[in-house]
Amino acid sequence: MQSFELLSRKFALHFDKAQFPAEPASLYQPNEYFLQLGGKRVRPVLSLMGNELFDEIREDAWDLAAAVELFHNFTLIHDDIMDQAPLRRGMETVHVKYGENTALLAGDVMLVKAYEHLSKIDGAFLRSILQLFNQTAREVCEGQQWDMDFEKMPRVSFGDYLRMIELKTSVLLAASLKMGSILGGAGERNQNLLYEFGRKLGIAFQVQDDYLDAFGDPHKFGKQIGGDILSNKKTFLVIHALETAGTARREELDRLLSGDEERKVEKVLAIFRECGVDEWALEVKNKYLDEALDHLEDIAVLSKRKKPLADLAQFLVQREH
Amino acid sequence: MQSFELLSRKFALHFDKAQFPAEPASLYQPNEYFLQLGGKRVRPVLSLMGNELFDEIREDAWDLAAAVELFHNFTLIHDDIMDQAPLRRGMETVHVKYGENTALLAGDVMLVKAYEHLSKIDGAFLRSILQLFNQTAREVCEGQQWDMDFEKMPRVSFGDYLRMIELKTSVLLAASLKMGSILGGAGERNQNLLYEFGRKLGIAFQVQDDYLDAFGDPHKFGKQIGGDILSNKKTFLVIHALETAGTARREELDRLLSGDEERKVEKVLAIFRECGVDEWALEVKNKYLDEALDHLEDIAVLSKRKKPLADLAQFLVQREH
Repeated sequence: MQSFELLSRKFALHFDKAQFPAEPASLYQPNEYFLQLGGKRVRPVLSLMGNELFDEIREDAWDLAAAVELFHNFTLIHDDIMDQAPLRRGMETVHVKYGENTALLAGDVMLVKAYEHLSKIDGAFLRSILQLFNQTAREVCEGQQWDMDFEKMPRVSFGDYLRMIELKTSVLLAASLKMGSILGGAGERNQNLLYEFGRKLGIAFQVQDDYLDAFGDPHKFGKQIGGDILSNKKTFLVIHALETAGTARREELDRLLSGDEERKVEKVLAIFRECGVDEWALEVKNKYLDEALDHLEDIAVLSKRKKPLADLAQFLVQREH
Repeated sequence: MQSFELLSRKFALHFDKAQFPAEPASLYQPNEYFLQLGGKRVRPVLSLMGNELFDEIREDAWDLAAAVELFHNFTLIHDDIMDQAPLRRGMETVHVKYGENTALLAGDVMLVKAYEHLSKIDGAFLRSILQLFNQTAREVCEGQQWDMDFEKMPRVSFGDYLRMIELKTSVLLAASLKMGSILGGAGERNQNLLYEFGRKLGIAFQVQDDYLDAFGDPHKFGKQIGGDILSNKKTFLVIHALETAGTARREELDRLLSGDEERKVEKVLAIFRECGVDEWALEVKNKYLDEALDHLEDIAVLSKRKKPLADLAQFLVQREH
């Protein structure tokens, strides 16, 4: 069983080369540009780890991993257009650098390229992996649509927000693991436990993301604290604060988040603290992490095989940046 | 062997129902809206005819046909965004009716839905069909990119333009037929002959499209004559006129096509006629149609089985609207 770091380096050896033909350069150069911006490559490594949990890593697992990473990058390119995001990983987004039409088409062809990798999977597993991939892809699109819909709504319930995060973030982590386990020959029960591990890990991961943006250590976080607050983004923290605050604080929070006044971040953070949002977020995160680890525990393979996944879960959820 | 009209009606019985879940309605209603705008459904019926040329129509051929039609609609939704087209089949385009972000995401999920249908294809044929579908999807994206690139270039050669049309239009007609023939158990030689039939038919089809826009009978055409000229679109006619006209006429054509003057259509058509573009277009169209029919002729099945395809080819290329 190999660690996340080791598998991540091995994945880079397979993946960090030209994925697209040279021509038309006006289409494929934007794709290569975006891929070389890098990223943590969490999802493809989850596929490799899902495979290795049950068997040695198969040759076609590298194609599965590439498909998952290309799919993720497709969603980022298109999400950046929809969010009108200027930067991704500190660099210009595709639509800013090359124009919206090219970014739209580059995203499309990135998705098709993901399916090209999928089509190389062994025939014994091709259909079941293709079907899970399709279902997941559709769910991720649904999550993005709910996210855009929620931005326009004055109130979103915790339950609805949670479901949106599951669709937008968790299901791809879960499916990456499960597709790997299918290649590893896992039985259905083990496949599903691994999926649930990934699904709950994804929620804990997103809570940590939201938490760090508000309560992270500025020296370790690497980005400006309060970015989500400044952009009036709905997060786990905002949703919970609005659900639990008294009338006066809720109205104050509504007012702050619909405006752009001085010391806005500071004032919102004060309300968060008064509502105990910081402690609540840590509790929620740990609850989902614990449940995720319980599912991992239940999987019927030797404990030592699970260690890299348990370590990765701790890292993703306890990280400070 | 069933006619295009009959298969078209049968395809509608399979396809004309809700393709998407109810929720999120903000995502899926735009998809259903676009699908019910209709269309000739040429591509899915080509898949059915490709199947029936070699065997009875299989159950999964209807899924292949649906996948092909959904893919085609995905390209239309995204192309309409890129072209900023206000209307499609006389109705509002998705991005005009629902906004660009929703149109982008609706297109994405339409493509994923196409792959959901593909995933139901019999395991004996799944990989080869998936691979041809992927290759074709990527080529169609390349064609769209070349098309956008060409719009910005002062001169495009006939050869480059032809290749663009092949990618943007022909390969999907060709692949629809070939994927159907794979399901029908056709041998490789017959598959490839059918592909070539479709590829050349696609070119003839596009030439006829360009021809009708300029020289169609206004009473039969159903749209305003000269729409391509008014939007300064590069077409087979423009490319050929620019390649064959003398210096004076070429400069006049350049001037007309870069401006917006009165009686522009009339003046451009006069130059087209002086250059003999109308007769040339009919010759080119008939050349490709004849080559297409030769490939069909070469396919090793009884001639009477081929009749519906030959009839359809004649109809598509001789149509007056």
